[in-house]
Amino acid sequence: MAVGSGITTELRPVRGVRLAVASAGIKTPGKQDLVLVELAAGSELAAVFTRNRFCAAPVHIARDHVARYARSDRREPVALLINTGNANAGTGEQGLNDARACCEATADALNLRASSIIPFSTGVIGEYLPLDRMRRAIPSLAASLGDADWYTAARSILTTDTRAKGHSVTVEIDDSPVTITGMSKGSGMICPNMATMLGFVCTDAAVSSADLHALLQTATEKTFNRISVDGDTSTNDACVLAATGESGVSLSPESAGWSEFAAAIEAVMHELAQQIIRDGEGVTRVMAVRVTEAASVQEALDVAYTIAHSPLVKTALAAGDANWGRLLAAVGRAPLDDLDINRVTLAVDDVPVVAGGQRHPAYTEERGAAVFAREELTVTVGLGRGDTTETVWTTDLSHEYVSINADYRT
Amino acid sequence: MAVGSGITTELRPVRGVRLAVASAGIKTPGKQDLVLVELAAGSELAAVFTRNRFCAAPVHIARDHVARYARSDRREPVALLINTGNANAGTGEQGLNDARACCEATADALNLRASSIIPFSTGVIGEYLPLDRMRRAIPSLAASLGDADWYTAARSILTTDTRAKGHSVTVEIDDSPVTITGMSKGSGMICPNMATMLGFVCTDAAVSSADLHALLQTATEKTFNRISVDGDTSTNDACVLAATGESGVSLSPESAGWSEFAAAIEAVMHELAQQIIRDGEGVTRVMAVRVTEAASVQEALDVAYTIAHSPLVKTALAAGDANWGRLLAAVGRAPLDDLDINRVTLAVDDVPVVAGGQRHPAYTEERGAAVFAREELTVTVGLGRGDTTETVWTTDLSHEYVSINADYRT
Repeated sequence: MAVGSGITTELRPVRGVRLAVASAGIKTPGKQDLVLVELAAGSELAAVFTRNRFCAAPVHIARDHVARYARSDRREPVALLINTGNANAGTGEQGLNDARACCEATADALNLRASSIIPFSTGVIGEYLPLDRMRRAIPSLAASLGDADWYTAARSILTTDTRAKGHSVTVEIDDSPVTITGMSKGSGMICPNMATMLGFVCTDAAVSSADLHALLQTATEKTFNRISVDGDTSTNDACVLAATGESGVSLSPESAGWSEFAAAIEAVMHELAQQIIRDGEGVTRVMAVRVTEAASVQEALDVAYTIAHSPLVKTALAAGDANWGRLLAAVGRAPLDDLDINRVTLAVDDVPVVAGGQRHPAYTEERGAAVFAREELTVTVGLGRGDTTETVWTTDLSHEYVSINADYRT
Repeated sequence: MAVGSGITTELRPVRGVRLAVASAGIKTPGKQDLVLVELAAGSELAAVFTRNRFCAAPVHIARDHVARYARSDRREPVALLINTGNANAGTGEQGLNDARACCEATADALNLRASSIIPFSTGVIGEYLPLDRMRRAIPSLAASLGDADWYTAARSILTTDTRAKGHSVTVEIDDSPVTITGMSKGSGMICPNMATMLGFVCTDAAVSSADLHALLQTATEKTFNRISVDGDTSTNDACVLAATGESGVSLSPESAGWSEFAAAIEAVMHELAQQIIRDGEGVTRVMAVRVTEAASVQEALDVAYTIAHSPLVKTALAAGDANWGRLLAAVGRAPLDDLDINRVTLAVDDVPVVAGGQRHPAYTEERGAAVFAREELTVTVGLGRGDTTETVWTTDLSHEYVSINADYRT
């Protein structure tokens, strides 16, 4: 099941980025499960990773390699090696060695150092990588760089996703086109069995490492870090933002075009995140939870996530049931010590539901039923405490979700 | 669905406690939905209530009446009035007036002050009480005091529970029998549509108000506050501990029999809480999550609840799937900043699963499958940080859970 539309734009190539896909038989024979993304010499890249303490072996290695690259002066090509079918998480020292071995095999094939290969894995947790099969596939993968397009690559990093996810935006800066293209995978913050959210966004603008990192942090916070299918943060989450510079357009926060460029980056990441939530596990409805009049970002998010993670809210959403009492109870148990419930307002789309601690006089079951039947809806909670607004997006909790997660390994 | 056994003891009467049930047609015509529990003159009582800020009208009134009683010198009889079918929550000022009106009607019938009636409601949220029907039923309810037994009363406070819940323990103190009997309702921390967990425990020991309150706090923390079906704290939760003194046995923390008595109170509350979790919504398996070697109670509970609330852990449990990677990932995302994952150990019942950040050498899929197939199992997580142990109990997340909660109002 999925909601709304999938990819809505052509996925345009980014100058300085070459792609390849291969089938290594990691989990399913014949499935394309290895993707290589090569960034031309001179590229900058930034990455953010899961905060889960049981993070996967490739997360450790990728974090280290990204940091080494940022610290060094060399700007030789860099390559992202992404495998699906196996998360290489919960695999201890052997997992680290396996991830390093994949980097070495790829580095050999591309004539680069191993630390110029950034590894990403997604799939089942607790099993060792089928290293021999992967090493056998890597040389031809490397040799075919440039043969694949973004759509093919996006399709090859999926696990239980039902749709490929990608988006492109082109902005004109100083009369030069700057392209931003990204792909992501994930059926939620966490996919079945700790497979992962992965996001890869590339641009042909020239941006410094520090500016790229700041941009990624800000945009991640507003996009990927605002969606939740089940509240389970995975062991492998990662998002990379790379800038090849091959458009010839250099940008920094002082540039006239920066804000347009930054908005375009955020737009691509927003769209990738929205495609993930719309393809959330078992999803039949997507709900935006918008908390307004909060005293701080933190309390807005506390309330929003308490609603977004409530199994009772999510099962009511699955039924399209205007069960606003569950929304109210979730607000009431959010970790705000001094909430004055008489100032709380609740609306669903344009229908006011609660004011003054009870049902709004204009609310009727019929109006509620009409908005809760929608495939996408927005719950707005006013706290009456300040001026801050934050929005998170969540899915319903359907029978299909239980089926997917109860049956995944078997 | 339910797990294990329900009531395992005869529910013995408590001297000084009289019970009555009636049918007021609050939600379902003909269902017994009103319960009156009268405590004889001279009784002491203590109560704890939900921490949800959107707490129900009867919670406000009950809290006020319990506090007034504790402050006053009078020890005239007190009565608990419990209705099912309607939570009287999210009902604003009218809800408060309705709860007060029920107290007044009961007080008139019993010739008591209204503040001696403690009201409790459970059921659908956001609807006003059918006050006329309740007022019509109250006089005959009051007139029949003493006619009902604990089992009948326990059955009459249920909502979607599939079983009545109660337990009795008798302890001999100074050669005198002291009886403790309790009943509870709830298919989880929260039942469908914010119906509630309610617990009522009575003893014929004589205990001071202050000692009773301290005892209730301690025992609640270890029993009712350690179970979770879905992490959703209800608007109406309440637990009352009452002591009539009619056994003639006076107890205080200085008494020789106190520790035995306190252990018996906790045993009754533990059993009532366990009966709730075993009758959790859609439950097919119950999992105890035991966190050992924690540096503090708080961090033990943080880890335990992160596991207990994880939809991925709970769906794997529904499938009886030994998906230990999900347990590991939940530990990893618990809010502990400096967890050393190489010191973490994980076992399920007597099967070691994880050590040193990866699969235990003695673990096999077969051994894992055997323990995860059990109807009740214990996950033990060692943190390697200290000496504190805490245990919480949770249920699986089954198709039946989704059905119950998606279909409840319709």
